Amino acid sequence: MNNLAFPRDLLRQFGSPAVVIDLDVVERNIARIQAACDAAGVANRPHIKTHKSPLIAAMQRDAGARGITCQKLGEAEVMADGGLDDILISYNILGEDKVARLGALLGRVRVTVAADNPVTVAGLPEAGRMAGRQLPVVVECDTGRQRAGVETPGEAIALARQIAASPHLSFAGLLMYPPEDRWAETQRFVDQVRAALASEGLTLDIVSTGGTPNLANLGQLKGATEHRAGTYVFNDRMMMACGQATLADCALTVHATVVSRAAPERGILDAGSKTLTADPGGGLDGFGYILEHPEARIHKFAEEHGFLDLSACNDRPDVGDVVRIIPNHVCVVCNMVDRYVAVRGETIIGEIPVAARGRLS
Amino acid sequence: MNNLAFPRDLLRQFGSPAVVIDLDVVERNIARIQAACDAAGVANRPHIKTHKSPLIAAMQRDAGARGITCQKLGEAEVMADGGLDDILISYNILGEDKVARLGALLGRVRVTVAADNPVTVAGLPEAGRMAGRQLPVVVECDTGRQRAGVETPGEAIALARQIAASPHLSFAGLLMYPPEDRWAETQRFVDQVRAALASEGLTLDIVSTGGTPNLANLGQLKGATEHRAGTYVFNDRMMMACGQATLADCALTVHATVVSRAAPERGILDAGSKTLTADPGGGLDGFGYILEHPEARIHKFAEEHGFLDLSACNDRPDVGDVVRIIPNHVCVVCNMVDRYVAVRGETIIGEIPVAARGRLS
Repeated sequence: MNNLAFPRDLLRQFGSPAVVIDLDVVERNIARIQAACDAAGVANRPHIKTHKSPLIAAMQRDAGARGITCQKLGEAEVMADGGLDDILISYNILGEDKVARLGALLGRVRVTVAADNPVTVAGLPEAGRMAGRQLPVVVECDTGRQRAGVETPGEAIALARQIAASPHLSFAGLLMYPPEDRWAETQRFVDQVRAALASEGLTLDIVSTGGTPNLANLGQLKGATEHRAGTYVFNDRMMMACGQATLADCALTVHATVVSRAAPERGILDAGSKTLTADPGGGLDGFGYILEHPEARIHKFAEEHGFLDLSACNDRPDVGDVVRIIPNHVCVVCNMVDRYVAVRGETIIGEIPVAARGRLS
Repeated sequence: MNNLAFPRDLLRQFGSPAVVIDLDVVERNIARIQAACDAAGVANRPHIKTHKSPLIAAMQRDAGARGITCQKLGEAEVMADGGLDDILISYNILGEDKVARLGALLGRVRVTVAADNPVTVAGLPEAGRMAGRQLPVVVECDTGRQRAGVETPGEAIALARQIAASPHLSFAGLLMYPPEDRWAETQRFVDQVRAALASEGLTLDIVSTGGTPNLANLGQLKGATEHRAGTYVFNDRMMMACGQATLADCALTVHATVVSRAAPERGILDAGSKTLTADPGGGLDGFGYILEHPEARIHKFAEEHGFLDLSACNDRPDVGDVVRIIPNHVCVVCNMVDRYVAVRGETIIGEIPVAARGRLS
């Protein structure tokens, strides 16, 4: 049995498995990326979908972030409840019920929303009317990722006009999540829209780019005003794989216990797909990096079983041993738990609620 | 835009996306499997890991189930709080903190636990001592799945002796999750253990098999006393793929909204990997079956985006359309939400808390 007194004490107090964040590392990550945005002359608007915590969002704000990004209206409501202001919801908001909630939110904090189609834009004015002030709307543009976003500058221009034509909306600019290797195309897209709208008196006050991997590309897009990165606050195996993080930058680990060792070359962790999630991390080998046994592979999951292949390990864990795992994709792991255990190094600080978890809509 | 008045009203009330269960279908599933267990002469001990709801567990009990199965101590605590009794925890319970919780639980309801190694068994007596009554322990056996469970009858016999030697434990029998095609091996395993222990006065009061797919094999194992199936209560694409369920047996659907249609052949749903999960369902094509558009493929996820490939659809959904999705693996989807929306056909009944969700340990 290993002698990891610290994680063993932690699990005794909070139960195994536990999702643990090191606030020292979180603070370093926040400061480093804020400095990178400052150096590039781009506002920092971190995406809170990763941590879903108003407390951590406030740390980002207090370090210099201009505002925050949310992916769900429910996340934005929780952030506003937690004292955050200047919230960008980078998502099409549809339906009378959500537009009414958006109107209520706009009545108490600054909100900007994204839209990529005329149906969404047609529904939004009611939110501005309710709040008694214009709702700023950015047009989401697709410059190669084929997710949401209009595909052509012509469509972006048409949506901008539709937005500007409503007395309850204001056209605020463009939002995109550019592929890491398509800056020339993205630049052409933005420049075309900017030029066409200038003659109509419409300006791009916001040109918002996104993604932690794209932090390596800050400054690539001329005229970008802000960047939305989420994962950098905790980092994970994916961020290590793309070169955006080192092991020392990974703030979140799942602490788990070896509960079975039925054969010499295999074992079972008490963290399965209901804790670590089946997210393949964009094609990584296995489902997590084990700090104490880097040669071990988590090769398969049942819901509460993580299957360990120990064949490459000289030092193999025993039943009862505690291990710490860096997950493939930290954003989906945070979404599994109601609270983080917060530490600083080996000092336990307490629990932090994942307040916006479970806010599906 | 389609005219699904019912799911549209539901999402207006509860927000999009929503996880919806049809209680009529749930009741039919519960009754059908109870009848199948009764006909096979095997007690029904449903696994509540699928629904995590004491209300639904009580429906299973009231329909004739002997008791319930839990995979986590935290689940068992929530079930006991909800009035359930006779709880099998089919998992190695390790650590002083958990053994103390187990002792407290044993003090108020009947509990049986599984163990597959001497370290686990060595820790368990304290629970019986605390509760002032013996804790029944079944030995988990692996008959081919290579998950948890001892690999040989000899190891099972040794563990049975270790259990029986403690005044605070009682040896209760064997537990396994047999591969669907290994009944001869499983029979030999059980028979060998039974014969060896009989001479020592130890009997197999419980021989517990598991798995919804194995409901097709009730009666295959001579001497089996009970079966633990979980997924059958809701069913999903995996259960349809293995022949255990039809579309009409699927009680749970994720109701979602089409939020983007940036190109003719593709679209985006507001249900991504944070709702439907990246569970591949054992190699299914895509991530869900859409009732309204069976030819559509959910081929990829972002956290809040489900990527639709509509190239095979003649009838393609518009922005704002509502669709209902049967997920690949229902057990992990239930684990994402704090409550179900309960319906009967097209009548909305209310919300049911997923009370044991988030009980990681």
